[in-house]
Amino acid sequence: MPLARLSVPSHLSSHRVRALADAVHEALVATCGVPPADRFQLISRLDADEMILDPTFPGGLTRSSDASVVEISFLAGRTDEQKRSLYRQVVARAVASGFRPDDVMIALVENTAIDWSLGRGDAYAGHSKA
Amino acid sequence: MPLARLSVPSHLSSHRVRALADAVHEALVATCGVPPADRFQLISRLDADEMILDPTFPGGLTRSSDASVVEISFLAGRTDEQKRSLYRQVVARAVASGFRPDDVMIALVENTAIDWSLGRGDAYAGHSKA
Amino acid sequence: MPLARLSVPSHLSSHRVRALADAVHEALVATCGVPPADRFQLISRLDADEMILDPTFPGGLTRSSDASVVEISFLAGRTDEQKRSLYRQVVARAVASGFRPDDVMIALVENTAIDWSLGRGDAYAGHSKA
Repeated sequence: MPLARLSVPSHLSSHRVRALADAVHEALVATCGVPPADRFQLISRLDADEMILDPTFPGGLTRSSDASVVEISFLAGRTDEQKRSLYRQVVARAVASGFRPDDVMIALVENTAIDWSLGRGDAYAGHSKA
Repeated sequence: MPLARLSVPSHLSSHRVRALADAVHEALVATCGVPPADRFQLISRLDADEMILDPTFPGGLTRSSDASVVEISFLAGRTDEQKRSLYRQVVARAVASGFRPDDVMIALVENTAIDWSLGRGDAYAGHSKA
Repeated sequence: MPLARLSVPSHLSSHRVRALADAVHEALVATCGVPPADRFQLISRLDADEMILDPTFPGGLTRSSDASVVEISFLAGRTDEQKRSLYRQVVARAVASGFRPDDVMIALVENTAIDWSLGRGDAYAGHSKA
């Protein structure tokens, strides 16, 4: 909570995939007030014909076969500026571990605290923002 | 509609996975007014390095290698109390089939009736709440 | 952006899966003002016991083992009529490539322009609607 789903090409090494996952989490911590321990990530490795990603949209980009998609579900309430910082930091950190900047796509979906139970059947609502 | 996606460790037996799926559906029926026949569930089996789940967040929990994530998309309109009951019942039923209570994480995403087509290209809107 | 996730039975041929993906994208272009190049799709092939889809709900439908689920995340703002047209056109195009009309289920989730970064760490907000 956040919950991130990374959809990555199956040819990427485990090391590369882990580096992208680290980039996503560290950027969430740095920009969106997520506690460092609040890490929940799912990874889907997909074959080439299971990822249909336009190579240039919205124009000017050049995606390679390494292009990956990061979907993040988290609490509503982050500002536009926090989201802009999040994107910048995810990509900066991914680039530092070998990704091309055009190969990281991010999509956010928001919900609210009552929409999460992290375990034991307890609603998360009431805990501090995360 | 609801549509549930269960992300489970690949080492879990089919029997255990099915029991978790049953727990999710039965809890939706019992707490959220979902018709018994309204069952739509997708299951992703993930290897250990494809599930990065903090072992204790938000504190006090102890997740094991069996930890699983249940994402449910359904119609907005359930009350906070219904969601709390849902979490309690999913976990109670999962525990009855061998899961540890700390190993079941749940996240909800809401949409509206016009956002569903269950088949034939027909919008679901107009059908009774589900 | 839209981002579509297709969950399809593993026994479907690559040709059939691609035809469904094409149907989804062409219908988005035709009904929802999505640019033709704005295509982002992820495909999950699932075994029979990983797809639990009621065979008839909400009544009158008859799903086969080919039944597939299409989840689409896109910008809020499409009208109910656009969504109805989208469903009709996805299914009409899928049927033209061999799917049964009862075997295509669609669910939409909406977000906003600031919730997308298509690459380079840039927020999509500011680009034209897509």
